[in-house]
Amino acid sequence: MNDAWWSRPCAAADADAACAARARQGRLTKPPGSLGKLEDIAVWWAARQGTERPGVERVWISVFAADHGVAEEGVSAFPQAVTGEMLRNFATGGAAIAVLARHLGARLDVVNLGTVNDPGELPDVHRAVIAPTTANFCEAPAMTREQLREAMQVGADRVALALDHDADLFIGGEMGIGNTTAATALSCALLDEAPEALAGSGTGLDDAGIARKCGVVRRALARQADADGAVDYLQRLGGFEIAALAGAYIAAAQARLPVLVDGFITTAAALTAVRLNEGVRDWLCFSHRSHERGHQRLLDALHAQPLLDLDMRLGEASGAAVAVPLLRMACALHREMATFEQAGVSRA
Amino acid sequence: MNDAWWSRPCAAADADAACAARARQGRLTKPPGSLGKLEDIAVWWAARQGTERPGVERVWISVFAADHGVAEEGVSAFPQAVTGEMLRNFATGGAAIAVLARHLGARLDVVNLGTVNDPGELPDVHRAVIAPTTANFCEAPAMTREQLREAMQVGADRVALALDHDADLFIGGEMGIGNTTAATALSCALLDEAPEALAGSGTGLDDAGIARKCGVVRRALARQADADGAVDYLQRLGGFEIAALAGAYIAAAQARLPVLVDGFITTAAALTAVRLNEGVRDWLCFSHRSHERGHQRLLDALHAQPLLDLDMRLGEASGAAVAVPLLRMACALHREMATFEQAGVSRA
Repeated sequence: MNDAWWSRPCAAADADAACAARARQGRLTKPPGSLGKLEDIAVWWAARQGTERPGVERVWISVFAADHGVAEEGVSAFPQAVTGEMLRNFATGGAAIAVLARHLGARLDVVNLGTVNDPGELPDVHRAVIAPTTANFCEAPAMTREQLREAMQVGADRVALALDHDADLFIGGEMGIGNTTAATALSCALLDEAPEALAGSGTGLDDAGIARKCGVVRRALARQADADGAVDYLQRLGGFEIAALAGAYIAAAQARLPVLVDGFITTAAALTAVRLNEGVRDWLCFSHRSHERGHQRLLDALHAQPLLDLDMRLGEASGAAVAVPLLRMACALHREMATFEQAGVSRA
Repeated sequence: MNDAWWSRPCAAADADAACAARARQGRLTKPPGSLGKLEDIAVWWAARQGTERPGVERVWISVFAADHGVAEEGVSAFPQAVTGEMLRNFATGGAAIAVLARHLGARLDVVNLGTVNDPGELPDVHRAVIAPTTANFCEAPAMTREQLREAMQVGADRVALALDHDADLFIGGEMGIGNTTAATALSCALLDEAPEALAGSGTGLDDAGIARKCGVVRRALARQADADGAVDYLQRLGGFEIAALAGAYIAAAQARLPVLVDGFITTAAALTAVRLNEGVRDWLCFSHRSHERGHQRLLDALHAQPLLDLDMRLGEASGAAVAVPLLRMACALHREMATFEQAGVSRA
C-alpha cells in the first residue's frame, strides 16, 4: 500500500518564518525567554503558518464516534449504548466538548462512523456509518482493509472540510465505549509493550477490571504474529474512529494544517499516523497529559511535551479544547506586545 | 499591631455550596472525575461564591510598580529606569499583561507606588507614590512602618475598587527592578532558608550574578536578628509593591473575593499575607509554577499546586492571566454540561 494517499509527503514547516519569529521574540518588552513555552508556541505556529506573526482564530473540532466489538469482553465501566447516546448529547450541546467548543467559538463537527445503538439522522451530526461496530479483535481483525480505507478517508474528508472553512487548527476527538482497550492493544503492538505497561482505568475500571482488560489485550496481541506494520495493526486492532483520526492527522499534515492532539486515544492514533508517514510529527502539537496510564509512554515515543497536566481523562477532544486559549494567548502576545524600541524601554 | 485591619478575620468558604457543586459534578455526562482538576476548580469557586454554579466573568488585574533601593547592589540584569518605562508600556498597551488583559476582557489597573525614573501622570495609571524607592535593605529597613501601612492600604483600596466593579476575581501583579531580590530576602526570612535555596536568575542573571544576589541577601538577613515576625520582615525586606500585594490579598480574603496568585514575587507576598492572617490561604488559587528557582519552595510552604507549568518568569501578573481561561472553562463546563438524566445517557 505504498501508493496509498497517506504515504504522500507532508508539508514542510517554514524555517525562515520560525527564524523571524524567534528574532521578534527577542525584541519584545520582556526579559528574553521569560514567557517560557508561550514563546516556543508562537515560533512553532509561525513556522507552520509561514508568517512571522501567526494566529489561531478559526478552530475546527471533529469528534469521531464509533463502537467496538471488543466491548463484549466487558472492558468498559459503561454500557455500549452510551456511544450512540452521546452522539445526541454532542448534537444538543450538553457534552463537555460541546460546551468547550461554544466557549471557544470553535466549529464542532460530529461524525457517526457506526454505533450499535444507532441514533439515526441527527441535526449537526455527519453520518458516515461504516458498520454498526468493529469486530471483536480478540477473535478476528477489527475491520476489513476496505473498512480501514473508508474510515481513514472519512478523517481526510473532515480535514478537507476544515480547510474549506479556513481553519487555522484541526482538533480530533473520539467517543466509543471500549476504545481505550483498542488504543491500548494498538499501542502495545506499535511499541512492543506488554498490556500492563499501557492499560489504564478508561472510563473507570477498578484493578480487577484493568486486569481483565490486560487479559483481553494479551489475547488480541497473540493473534498478531503475522501482522505487517502499522497499517495492519490499525486494521486489526484499531477502531473506525481511531482510523479516521489517523487519516485526519495525515491529511492535515499534508495540507499544512496544524493539529492539536488530545489524550490517550488520539495520541495512539497520532503514533499510528507517524508510523504511516513520519512527516506527520512535524504538524502535531500536544495539548495535555492524560491521567490514563498509558499516555505518558505514547508521549515519550513521540518525543512530545504536552502543554497541560490537569488529570483529565475524558476524551472527546476536551483536553485539546482546554489548551486552545494558551495557543491564542501565545500568538496574541507575540503579535501585539511592543518591542523595546517601540516602547522606549531600556534593554539589559 | 494586633488591632491592625489586616488582622481582622477572613471570610469563610461556603461548605454547602461546595457539597452541592461536587454532587452536580457527579451527575454530569462524563465518567466521574474525568475532568480532573477542572472539577476541583469548579467546586472551589462554588464554595467561594456561595453558589452551586459559579462563574469567573469579571476579572480585575492590579499591577503594582515600585522601585527598590537594593537595585544599587547590581542585582538585576536590567537598569532601574525600566520600572518607570514599563509603567508607560502598561498604559499604552504594549506590555505582556496589557495584551493579556485585552484578550481576556479583564480590567487592568496599573498603580505607581514610586519609581526613581518617575513618568509622572499617565492616563490609566493610578498614582499612589509613597517614595521614589525603598531604601537599600542591606543598609537600612526597606521602608518605615508608616510607609508599610500606606503600601498595604493602597493594595486594600484597589481591592475595594475591584469590588465596586463587581469583580469575580482579583489578580495582583508586580513590576520593579530588583524585586526578585526583595522577594528572595523576604522569603528566606519567613522560611528560615539560605539565599542559595531561593535565589534565581530573575530577569536574566548568570551564575555569577546569582552568587552576587545571594551575597546581598545574606548581608540583608544578617541585619534581621531582632526582627519581630512577618510585619517586621515585610517592612525591612519587602518593597512597596510587595506590601501592596500582601494588603490586597488580605483585603480580598476578608471581602470574599477570590485571588489568583501569579509567580515568585506575588507568592512571596501571598506567604507574607498568610503569615499575617492565616485565613487568607483559603481564598488563594495558584496559577502557575514559575521558572524562578525559589517558587517551588514557596508553593510547598503554602501547600499550593498551581494549574500551569509553562516555564514563565515574567511577572506583571502574566502567569495568572494565562490561567484565567482554565477557570472560565471549568465553570462553563460545570454550569452548562447536561446531566445523565437531562441527556438520557446511561450510567456506569
